[in-house]
Amino acid sequence: MEPLLDAVHWDAQGLVPVIAQEQGSNDVLMVAWMNREALAETARRGQAVYWSRSRGRLWHKGEESGHVQQVHEIRLDCDADVVLLKVTQHGHEPGIACHTGRHSCFFRVWKNDEWQAVDPVLKDPERIYK
Amino acid sequence: MEPLLDAVHWDAQGLVPVIAQEQGSNDVLMVAWMNREALAETARRGQAVYWSRSRGRLWHKGEESGHVQQVHEIRLDCDADVVLLKVTQHGHEPGIACHTGRHSCFFRVWKNDEWQAVDPVLKDPERIYK
Repeated sequence: MEPLLDAVHWDAQGLVPVIAQEQGSNDVLMVAWMNREALAETARRGQAVYWSRSRGRLWHKGEESGHVQQVHEIRLDCDADVVLLKVTQHGHEPGIACHTGRHSCFFRVWKNDEWQAVDPVLKDPERIYK
Repeated sequence: MEPLLDAVHWDAQGLVPVIAQEQGSNDVLMVAWMNREALAETARRGQAVYWSRSRGRLWHKGEESGHVQQVHEIRLDCDADVVLLKVTQHGHEPGIACHTGRHSCFFRVWKNDEWQAVDPVLKDPERIYK
C-alpha cells in the first residue's frame, strides 16, 4: 500500500479531498476527505472509506444508510492533491449519495440570482437514517 | 453577487475547492480554488476564474494557454463547501484542461500496485505555454 499512499500530497491535517464520481453516468456524487488509513482501507475493501472530519473517525460510507459505494477506479490528479473514485452507488435505484436523500450533493444551481435546489429528494432522510 | 458568495462556506484561507466538469461528457477535468473575487468574476464573465494559490493572484483559466473554460452552470454542494462548474473546455479539440497537455488532470489510475498514467498527452506543454 505504500506506493499508493506515498504518491499523495497530504495536506497539513494529513488529509486529501476525494471526489466520488458515478461509473457510467459520470455524475459527480459528492466530495469527502481521506487520510492514509481511509485510502488504504478503500483500496483493500473496494468500497469507499472516508475520514469524517466532523466525527473525527473513519467513515465507511453506507455504514448507517446502507448506501455503500463500490469502487471501480482510484485516480489521482497531476498535483497529487485530489483523489477521484469511480463508484457504483448502491442501496437505492437511482443511487443516493447525499445525506439529504438526493442522488448527488451538488443539487443547488446558481440561477436567476439565487441558489436553487433543482434535483429531487429520492428518499426521505428520516427513512434513510433510522 | 452577495447571495452567490455568502452561501459558500469559505475555509480559513477564504477559499473553496472547485471542480470543473465537462458539459456533455461529464468528465471531471480539474480541481482548483476560488476566493470570493474569483467566484464573482466567474459568474460575471461566464468563464472560469480561479485563485492561484502558488501565484497568489486571480487566475483567468486560459490566460496563457488559450484554454478558456466557458461556464454553463455553477453548483454548490449540500455542505456549501465545494463548488462545481459545468464547463466547455475551449482552445483545443478535444479539450485540454491539464497543464501536462492532457484532457483531464485525473490521468493517473491505481492499477497493478502502481500509479499508471493512462490518458494521452494531446499537445506538448511546450507548445501550449510559448
